[in-house]
Amino acid sequence: MSSSKEHHLVIINGVNRGFGHSVALDYIRHSGADAVSFVLVGRTQRSLEQVLTELHEAASDAGVVFEGVVVPEVDLAHLNSLDSNLARIQSAAADLRYEAARSRRTITKSVLVNNAGSLGDLSKTVKEFTWQEARSYFDFNVVSLVGLCSMFLKDTLEALPKEQYPEHKTVVVSISSLLAVQAFPNWGLYAAGKAARDRLLGVIALEEAANNVKTLNYAPGPLDNEMQADVRRTLGDKEQLKIYDDMHKSGSLVQMEDSSRKLIHLLKADTFTSGGHVDFYDE
Amino acid sequence: MSSSKEHHLVIINGVNRGFGHSVALDYIRHSGADAVSFVLVGRTQRSLEQVLTELHEAASDAGVVFEGVVVPEVDLAHLNSLDSNLARIQSAAADLRYEAARSRRTITKSVLVNNAGSLGDLSKTVKEFTWQEARSYFDFNVVSLVGLCSMFLKDTLEALPKEQYPEHKTVVVSISSLLAVQAFPNWGLYAAGKAARDRLLGVIALEEAANNVKTLNYAPGPLDNEMQADVRRTLGDKEQLKIYDDMHKSGSLVQMEDSSRKLIHLLKADTFTSGGHVDFYDE
Repeated sequence: MSSSKEHHLVIINGVNRGFGHSVALDYIRHSGADAVSFVLVGRTQRSLEQVLTELHEAASDAGVVFEGVVVPEVDLAHLNSLDSNLARIQSAAADLRYEAARSRRTITKSVLVNNAGSLGDLSKTVKEFTWQEARSYFDFNVVSLVGLCSMFLKDTLEALPKEQYPEHKTVVVSISSLLAVQAFPNWGLYAAGKAARDRLLGVIALEEAANNVKTLNYAPGPLDNEMQADVRRTLGDKEQLKIYDDMHKSGSLVQMEDSSRKLIHLLKADTFTSGGHVDFYDE
Repeated sequence: MSSSKEHHLVIINGVNRGFGHSVALDYIRHSGADAVSFVLVGRTQRSLEQVLTELHEAASDAGVVFEGVVVPEVDLAHLNSLDSNLARIQSAAADLRYEAARSRRTITKSVLVNNAGSLGDLSKTVKEFTWQEARSYFDFNVVSLVGLCSMFLKDTLEALPKEQYPEHKTVVVSISSLLAVQAFPNWGLYAAGKAARDRLLGVIALEEAANNVKTLNYAPGPLDNEMQADVRRTLGDKEQLKIYDDMHKSGSLVQMEDSSRKLIHLLKADTFTSGGHVDFYDE
């Protein structure tokens, strides 16, 4: 095969279900890449293997050359295993780069999609949170993101240095939220965490622009998924609860595939402002 | 004395030097309160006692009734001592409320000023940070803030419940930064931390509005102080470094007193939008 074709190496966490799963499938279907190498990061081996099988099928249907590696038993909430998990993800990416080289393919784009995250306890207001809860929340949703972004950027820019691969692009995506830019009651930790993530990617965008790195904070909208069901079960603020309940009943929550397709189209078009925040509802 | 006069109970951390020190002095001079009870939180007993003496003098000059308690040896970077430190701050506030009651004064406003914070390592870009550095940063600058805000709000609203004290106001201030709203290279952790703090106070503003609580994220501008000198010594980005160096040389850095006076005037006028971000340079 020609090395001029698009070959993307993509790392996604929380890919075993929900939005991460949907993003992975749509990446294969809509990214425009001729070949995709996937590092699938998540908790249980079994569900990751299932996703891998699905992705193989989707790739076959779409005529995309596909290679995938699963990195199971990764729980970003536990920092004591973060270093070893980062090493495993890094090693899986190295394996996929080696495979690509063996097939005489040039990796044209490396993408990290930070999809894993937690809601925090939405029954509580900020004054009801202990600092211990806040620490767990930031460990999982922000500190581990710094570790992951740092590893990914160093690893990618060392493996595919700009001098040798001037055409290679690197993209870091964070699954963000409206809460990153607008406050609502009972979302204290979630909103603060998303705001921190958004700003972090904003800084990376400036720091690494000369290395062909772009970043994107993508707010997928109120998705019709398990996390939204958790929101409806736990959210303490009655006013918002009614809005989400009404959206659920009237079927106006955002379908995961609609939102993941929008994200993949953004990445494909590559016209988004690096470091910015884009919402599903944005034009 | 009449209980209809303004008596403020103010907790400030990082008050031993720099901007916190300036805010404390200007609070006494310009807040318009007839009496001020201060909880001075910081690291060394000796410097806090010095500040206390200065505040006594300033109060005497301004004709303000003044009472102050120091809470020394508080380092918010160490979470293992946070609970005991929060308990000491809470106890100091209780003492001051008791003293006020003994003097037949009604506390009309309780204020927490979150001034303590750290720069992080400005020589590094995000890809150079380890997650351990990120964790230390968020522990100090965000997690401890959640603990402090949570303690302060619970304590204040229990001590001065709205039903019994309908006129009592509560204000939470966070010393923020332009970085909370705009990204610059080499400020990854600082910017993410400030963004998280801003959003956290935005959520509190909504959650506690019915309890007469307001919050304010105040960006004091590039202050002519020790922290700015640290910035000039450590900042890795040459372009910004030149800007700060030029500002320093031309004397156009913001004087601490100018900025602290603006903050106190904002608090006095009380017309700021709760949960918002106000910069020194704003009209």
